[in-house]
Amino acid sequence: MTGEFDAIRALAATLGPAPAGEIGIGDDAAAAPSEAAPWTLLAIDSVVAGVHADLALVGLDDLGWKAVAVNVSDIAAMGGEPTRCVVSVAGSGRTELSELYRGIAAAARELACPVVGGDLCTARGLVVSVAITGRAEGPPVLRSGASSGERIWVTGPLGASAAGLRELRAGASRGDPLPSLHARPRPRVAEGLAARRVGATAMIDVSDGFAADLWHLARASGVGFELDDVPVRAGATLEEALSGGEDYQLVFTAPADAEVLAGFAGLDPPIPVGWCTAEAGSGRLRGEVLPALGWQHPW
Amino acid sequence: MTGEFDAIRALAATLGPAPAGEIGIGDDAAAAPSEAAPWTLLAIDSVVAGVHADLALVGLDDLGWKAVAVNVSDIAAMGGEPTRCVVSVAGSGRTELSELYRGIAAAARELACPVVGGDLCTARGLVVSVAITGRAEGPPVLRSGASSGERIWVTGPLGASAAGLRELRAGASRGDPLPSLHARPRPRVAEGLAARRVGATAMIDVSDGFAADLWHLARASGVGFELDDVPVRAGATLEEALSGGEDYQLVFTAPADAEVLAGFAGLDPPIPVGWCTAEAGSGRLRGEVLPALGWQHPW
Repeated sequence: MTGEFDAIRALAATLGPAPAGEIGIGDDAAAAPSEAAPWTLLAIDSVVAGVHADLALVGLDDLGWKAVAVNVSDIAAMGGEPTRCVVSVAGSGRTELSELYRGIAAAARELACPVVGGDLCTARGLVVSVAITGRAEGPPVLRSGASSGERIWVTGPLGASAAGLRELRAGASRGDPLPSLHARPRPRVAEGLAARRVGATAMIDVSDGFAADLWHLARASGVGFELDDVPVRAGATLEEALSGGEDYQLVFTAPADAEVLAGFAGLDPPIPVGWCTAEAGSGRLRGEVLPALGWQHPW
Repeated sequence: MTGEFDAIRALAATLGPAPAGEIGIGDDAAAAPSEAAPWTLLAIDSVVAGVHADLALVGLDDLGWKAVAVNVSDIAAMGGEPTRCVVSVAGSGRTELSELYRGIAAAARELACPVVGGDLCTARGLVVSVAITGRAEGPPVLRSGASSGERIWVTGPLGASAAGLRELRAGASRGDPLPSLHARPRPRVAEGLAARRVGATAMIDVSDGFAADLWHLARASGVGFELDDVPVRAGATLEEALSGGEDYQLVFTAPADAEVLAGFAGLDPPIPVGWCTAEAGSGRLRGEVLPALGWQHPW
């Protein structure tokens, strides 16, 4: 490639045209007729080579996938559906853009979130920033709505990403079951929609780590929690399930068990893990204090 | 600051609360009741320390301002108004976030575009990515709508940013007139709205350089151009006006002179600079070939 503008033309071909009636890549902004959904969602998340993905273990295409997927997961965690995204890549001229965008395009297609614009610029290292819009038919599910006495649910077993990373470091292939969940995490959009519809009172996605993210939810809601159990993905350890992060399962709270299970008909049934308590600042797993294990960036 | 989450709490205080009735910083995504405007706009742009701003000459607060302003300018160039933005900062723990966010908050306030969410993560260097939503009451003005015979206009004299950078390198103060336009560019939102209302057929903002951006517009529209003159900001050179970039003036085309001038009543009157021609691929300034001077990132 000979420069930014040729690179953009090539990437636009990889990503395909904008949805009919919309303005996509190649103008100053993307544009679309406004939607009828009552709530509009907006989020941004960046993925950094060497921090969010070890390129000795996963591909640049996986990094691209992940940059889109983590944003889709943020929309899922509000009980919404993704609509469109835009991608900004800050990297060196040595970055294999075509490989990166293959993963971005695959995620956009499989996660139903077309890329309608973006930006390319020069930087040391590689930072892929994706911003996403979403829609919700009803009020979004915040982190702050849980009440004492409500059941805590998780949409699936935890620890797959951390276990997959461990297996990759030990020489496993990217296509193996747990490594593939590390390389290409699957956000839980259908489950987030179901949770909103069944009256979930609070919700968050497991990005930093289950314990850390549950603590975020509990603090935002002003409740404590008491866990009976933590569902561990086969092949993962309890430690990986509690603090590994990047599973992109959803954790939510809801008052009515029967409605939750009925509302998830046709999806993997959510797993009850414990209860919200009135004791704000207290979080326990089978009676033992559970600290906010997990990742935060060192600022 | 002791970590990402404390940092986010401090930054949220700098940025202030979300607009009434909306969900802002602190959840998985920002959320707002959907708007009635017929068109929704979406853009993303990143600003990189050392590439888009020399931190020996301007402040981190200026870098923050610029990251917001370049996005507002993208919305202006479509004939829209900014609505909300989200900010992702990838940097080292040594980055003075409070200074950076002072500039981001100032831009959000002065350019009427509240920051409703974001992300902080670790990277070498410093990359500030902003994504923005906007609204337009009518169809957005694209780069591709110009026709032969239409007048080309620019919303103000060019070269201020490049001249300001030159003066800063020679020891001028950030508060001096041209340096302040380099450090804190002013997107032309009111002018972009006026241009759309008077029937502008194509529009772009001057970010890469006037000649480069006019070439983008001409190529997208399949027209050539013949310029009579280029308005040069007092204190700048013709070279700075043609290729300096980052002026964030708008260049637009329109068929009817009288309507353009009437539609800009109360604003700085736009300056006619030449004509679109039927000779696609040909661009001239006073008869001389004008190459697509300006900046592109080396990919």
